[in-house]
Amino acid sequence: MINQETKQDVLPRLRKIEGQIRGIQRMVEKERYCIDIINQVTAAQRALDQVSLEVMKRHIESCVANAIKSDGGGPIIGELMETIYKFIR
Amino acid sequence: MINQETKQDVLPRLRKIEGQIRGIQRMVEKERYCIDIINQVTAAQRALDQVSLEVMKRHIESCVANAIKSDGGGPIIGELMETIYKFIR
Amino acid sequence: MINQETKQDVLPRLRKIEGQIRGIQRMVEKERYCIDIINQVTAAQRALDQVSLEVMKRHIESCVANAIKSDGGGPIIGELMETIYKFIR
Amino acid sequence: MINQETKQDVLPRLRKIEGQIRGIQRMVEKERYCIDIINQVTAAQRALDQVSLEVMKRHIESCVANAIKSDGGGPIIGELMETIYKFIR
Repeated sequence: MINQETKQDVLPRLRKIEGQIRGIQRMVEKERYCIDIINQVTAAQRALDQVSLEVMKRHIESCVANAIKSDGGGPIIGELMETIYKFIR
Repeated sequence: MINQETKQDVLPRLRKIEGQIRGIQRMVEKERYCIDIINQVTAAQRALDQVSLEVMKRHIESCVANAIKSDGGGPIIGELMETIYKFIR
Repeated sequence: MINQETKQDVLPRLRKIEGQIRGIQRMVEKERYCIDIINQVTAAQRALDQVSLEVMKRHIESCVANAIKSDGGGPIIGELMETIYKFIR
Repeated sequence: MINQETKQDVLPRLRKIEGQIRGIQRMVEKERYCIDIINQVTAAQRALDQVSLEVMKRHIESCVANAIKSDGGGPIIGELMETIYKFIR
């Protein structure tokens, strides 16, 4: 489960990313140089990677760890692997 | 250069992505299931891929094509390759 | 730890990938169409993704699970997150 | 079209990658630490990225440039974008 610490790490990142997306909209509206736009999109994607990794770390430390301790690790590890698979592609 | 057609394709996508990012913030605030949050982040990243590819296509069709026609393709192709490199990593 | 099952899953995949890499070398030597070469490289990379995911699943089921059960999950989860981070970029 | 320069750049890389894949097979056979195996797979994938980018650069400088000069850039740019799309996912 998401906890207070993850919230405090992840929410400011997401607000900054929201600002980046709005910034990219303005770049498109003002017909800024294509390469600069693409680089900003890439920066937002890398920032989203950090959000996913932070939430995934918390997920493993809480839900996955609890399931493993109560011997129910199988399905939750399967679900995690599927999520990593989607995440990398 | 970004043109009207690219704007009309890309701006609605970016507004939708901005909404997705806000949706992810609400999911974090409400402590929704970690895996669902990560999957939403992944969806936003895939949507951003489409924005980059659309802008890159337009860039190749306009700036890169013009540079090639006036025999100045070298530096702009180098810049494009660097951008693709950053984009994939 | 890698076990017999993972070996039997992963080794044939790796031998096939080795064949794909040799195939790509022949394509380059014969000056085949660039796009066909790139698509074959992409196919080999996707096959390598499967190898990493298979080994990572096994790692979580064995090393990570054991560490969590003996309350030493912290460092091994940190190491796993770093590996996922390198894997996605 | 692949030329002599691209061959001389790309073939040694591919031979080295073939060696990396064989090294990973040995690591699996000897049941080496999972994380070390995954990191080697990631290294091979990054080396394959360089092959793709090198071939793509050459493709843009030759086939795409020629098509653009003879006003047939449309389909070949479409094909390139599709290849980049598959490459990044």
